Amino acid sequence: MTDVIAFLGLGKMGEPMARRLLEAGLPLTVYNRTAEKTAALVAAGATTADTPAEAVSAGGVVFTMVANDAALEEVTLGDHGFLNRLGEGGVHISLSTIGVKTATHMGNIHAKAGAAYLCAPVFGRPPAAAAGQLGVAISGDPAAKARIRPLLEPLSRRVDDFGDAPGAANLVKLAGNFMIGSAIEALAEACALVEKGGVDREAFVDLLSNTLFDCPVYKIYGDGIAQSVYQPAGMRLVLGLKDIGLVLDAAHGIGVAMPLGSLVRDRLIRAVTGGHGEDDWMAADVAAREDAGLTS
Amino acid sequence: MTDVIAFLGLGKMGEPMARRLLEAGLPLTVYNRTAEKTAALVAAGATTADTPAEAVSAGGVVFTMVANDAALEEVTLGDHGFLNRLGEGGVHISLSTIGVKTATHMGNIHAKAGAAYLCAPVFGRPPAAAAGQLGVAISGDPAAKARIRPLLEPLSRRVDDFGDAPGAANLVKLAGNFMIGSAIEALAEACALVEKGGVDREAFVDLLSNTLFDCPVYKIYGDGIAQSVYQPAGMRLVLGLKDIGLVLDAAHGIGVAMPLGSLVRDRLIRAVTGGHGEDDWMAADVAAREDAGLTS
Amino acid sequence: MTDVIAFLGLGKMGEPMARRLLEAGLPLTVYNRTAEKTAALVAAGATTADTPAEAVSAGGVVFTMVANDAALEEVTLGDHGFLNRLGEGGVHISLSTIGVKTATHMGNIHAKAGAAYLCAPVFGRPPAAAAGQLGVAISGDPAAKARIRPLLEPLSRRVDDFGDAPGAANLVKLAGNFMIGSAIEALAEACALVEKGGVDREAFVDLLSNTLFDCPVYKIYGDGIAQSVYQPAGMRLVLGLKDIGLVLDAAHGIGVAMPLGSLVRDRLIRAVTGGHGEDDWMAADVAAREDAGLTS
Amino acid sequence: MTDVIAFLGLGKMGEPMARRLLEAGLPLTVYNRTAEKTAALVAAGATTADTPAEAVSAGGVVFTMVANDAALEEVTLGDHGFLNRLGEGGVHISLSTIGVKTATHMGNIHAKAGAAYLCAPVFGRPPAAAAGQLGVAISGDPAAKARIRPLLEPLSRRVDDFGDAPGAANLVKLAGNFMIGSAIEALAEACALVEKGGVDREAFVDLLSNTLFDCPVYKIYGDGIAQSVYQPAGMRLVLGLKDIGLVLDAAHGIGVAMPLGSLVRDRLIRAVTGGHGEDDWMAADVAAREDAGLTS
Repeated sequence: MTDVIAFLGLGKMGEPMARRLLEAGLPLTVYNRTAEKTAALVAAGATTADTPAEAVSAGGVVFTMVANDAALEEVTLGDHGFLNRLGEGGVHISLSTIGVKTATHMGNIHAKAGAAYLCAPVFGRPPAAAAGQLGVAISGDPAAKARIRPLLEPLSRRVDDFGDAPGAANLVKLAGNFMIGSAIEALAEACALVEKGGVDREAFVDLLSNTLFDCPVYKIYGDGIAQSVYQPAGMRLVLGLKDIGLVLDAAHGIGVAMPLGSLVRDRLIRAVTGGHGEDDWMAADVAAREDAGLTS
Repeated sequence: MTDVIAFLGLGKMGEPMARRLLEAGLPLTVYNRTAEKTAALVAAGATTADTPAEAVSAGGVVFTMVANDAALEEVTLGDHGFLNRLGEGGVHISLSTIGVKTATHMGNIHAKAGAAYLCAPVFGRPPAAAAGQLGVAISGDPAAKARIRPLLEPLSRRVDDFGDAPGAANLVKLAGNFMIGSAIEALAEACALVEKGGVDREAFVDLLSNTLFDCPVYKIYGDGIAQSVYQPAGMRLVLGLKDIGLVLDAAHGIGVAMPLGSLVRDRLIRAVTGGHGEDDWMAADVAAREDAGLTS
Repeated sequence: MTDVIAFLGLGKMGEPMARRLLEAGLPLTVYNRTAEKTAALVAAGATTADTPAEAVSAGGVVFTMVANDAALEEVTLGDHGFLNRLGEGGVHISLSTIGVKTATHMGNIHAKAGAAYLCAPVFGRPPAAAAGQLGVAISGDPAAKARIRPLLEPLSRRVDDFGDAPGAANLVKLAGNFMIGSAIEALAEACALVEKGGVDREAFVDLLSNTLFDCPVYKIYGDGIAQSVYQPAGMRLVLGLKDIGLVLDAAHGIGVAMPLGSLVRDRLIRAVTGGHGEDDWMAADVAAREDAGLTS
Repeated sequence: MTDVIAFLGLGKMGEPMARRLLEAGLPLTVYNRTAEKTAALVAAGATTADTPAEAVSAGGVVFTMVANDAALEEVTLGDHGFLNRLGEGGVHISLSTIGVKTATHMGNIHAKAGAAYLCAPVFGRPPAAAAGQLGVAISGDPAAKARIRPLLEPLSRRVDDFGDAPGAANLVKLAGNFMIGSAIEALAEACALVEKGGVDREAFVDLLSNTLFDCPVYKIYGDGIAQSVYQPAGMRLVLGLKDIGLVLDAAHGIGVAMPLGSLVRDRLIRAVTGGHGEDDWMAADVAAREDAGLTS
């Protein structure tokens, strides 16, 4: 396992993950669409490449962590995409949250090229990435999973295997994001109720997020919603809206109605319309505030 | 503080709470509408009373933990109700989850009688009650709160004070129950999605409830929903539906729209119609299962 | 049938209905809580009474058209209520939209007094009342219905009999109001969509309300919503909200989930919070406008 | 205007529309994917073509009435598509209900070919088509609209012009279908309420659809829903679901939240899951019936 590993996409999550791999002593070639983001990693020992294709080696391993389905298709299959070069025996570990159709399509196209496509979306925000404490859901070809398993050690505190279907882990990730969006809506409505009823919303959230809801989602989003402070944006609202759209597309495509998912989407659309697209997606809170006539 | 304390209502939550007080060495008189439930506590040292009124002492302290607003009014104000006897200087610690209007009305009527009405709803299920690990939200008259504060020690791991308004703590409790109902719906829809998408729902919940949602609500309800096993009923569905009704009445009464609350109620109504009224309220899950065409 | 008929409640609907009865040559005694509203009818030949009780004759016929359940109970059973005087053989034709529980209670209490309680809510707005073109839904005791049937002629173009249960016709009325509220929401969302998509909303409504939706509800509310003009208030929004609350109480009381009803209520609450309580209830439109980021 | 006119797509709506054109004395060439559907029209004087391309003449006029976006792209741009042959000066009158993106794309691609693309979706069901009593919403190039205006006479009782943007009329059609879906849901919930409350649902609908809701949508769907008879399928449920999907895609694409639209979609998904995909889309009624515990 002394091959050079490629890591494509150095955003808020990708950068600290690449750094963890470097710090674990793994040889790493990095690529990012805007090249200046590679500087710090190069200073830490990484090599850079000018294109996705140049970053990978034949039969090697490549991680991708990009913004959306289109970006994934571009780095993989575009003019400078890596798949042709990766080729027979290569493994693509796709960390991004994407649509189910794209995941299935990716699986097929890699298979034709003799490569393996593994969905490996992660659970956790940037600080967890920096600490190597992510949760990883993975699915895809068993041999490829076995081969790259050690590479996940520096990144995660837990790896859950969801079987051989390339899209399975991605569906798990989408369902998890739906659950976060639902928790945001529940917190927002509950806070609007207690505040209008004369109760301090911070005290309310403090009690709940230290008893029945004593977990990261309710602590992180609970704090922000209790204070109605939606920055910094760990997850930008427009991206949250995109993900909920992917969830609902996946659900509707297999005949599953998700009324709570629909509600979450409608609240996020309203928040974008209200100018909160670049805030954290807990800014869906503004809808509940407005409905209750609370001024921020 | 050597007065005899009265405890009225020995259901799934009341019984272990009364036992904790006894075990802490406090003299206790207990009352329950169906008298046989008092036997075990009597064996452990409690005294019994034939009526609510006979259980209390003038100017003393009484806990109530009953099923609903009507039961609370009955034990307090009914033919054998205790309020007249409790009278001047007495303190009523109301642990039940009730409507906001009833809480306000109770506050007024106790004030007229010279007694204090404290709302002190609890967070936690029967095992937490048995272990003295409940969360308590409390509100009402400051002097009364100070007086009874030591009595909450054997019951709780945390007491949060929500001020002087008698109904405030009750509103907090209602909002908390709304959040639980919302988490149930989120779990149900997410599980329906992943199962129909070919993913093992138990593996999905195991991942989520040990990472982002690593807290009691998601563990307890996550297990049941993942397995679609809705017994034993820690909280009967008909009672959950009643509570969500109280939440929405409270919200609508002060001009707060709660669309997620409305969704949760509609799912619970549907589950009652489908014959799940006596199951745990996580049986709201059946609606999501049916919508996805999953057979149980 | 030469008895004097009593008519209690001379609001926007009651006044033109009373006038129709007068113009049909029927002897009429009228009563209104604020007495000045009786002047025009007195000029047209009506007698007035100082109290509800004085307006009725023993064994006679009394119409009531009042604002809500409490007002109905007041004129019927209050200090100056008419039921004791009406007594054996009397018929109470209740035109108001009230709750199902109140209707049932009224039926029982009249039966005890030897009188008949007929629910006879009307469909139509003030101009239809003035033209004697209302639709009437009626239910209750068959003999009483037969006796008062001729009195409905001057008021209506259609009388539909829903059987012997006093509350049945009232449920029909509530369900009809739910359908109107739903049509308002549909118009509001459709108009927001087409306007933001660059289409003239008035032209859109003009097409729809003259083809597939060529009926009074879509013409009346379609015009107002297309122009976002919510005055005059044929039905005040706070009353619309009250009625939808009665619908949902009735539904939930018998185990019927109505998600569209819940949505309509949430939109109306939001409109009240936004200051539109005294506008016509089509002002629910503001929620759809806001969601789409349309400025009025 | 003695050019031969092409008509492509002879389904439940297309066939009677083509027949109206023939009966008006217009020379017509017809094409249908399954050729046997052309026989009756040939007997009535039409010519047939083996492919879409062969059906049109250079610079001529072509009507299309096909099932969905993909079918429209196939007949227009596929291997045997007509656009190349239609070419400069040709006019394509697109009667189908399609997505907003497809409509815009079609507009652009026709413009490049020197032809005009007119959206002209119709309002009405097969009997209205057969009677030439459809409503037509039209938008697109003014000169092209003027040229083909006389051809709409035999088809419609009303033509509404929504301006120059090719997609505008299509958006109007989508919004109209949303309104129909909403009316179905309102009828279904209202009927479930009254039936469970002991009222005859047919009598209820008869009253409403002859007074406040005295219009085609409430008569047609009201009858079916009152009787819970969902055949014959004037509009198949799977197609209704597709259309509501197009509505929501259009809305979400321009930042408009439509919670009632989301509700209607969820009910339709559930009805498909329950086996009603080939029934008329008023079979969304089954969700309301199930929610109320009514057996069919």
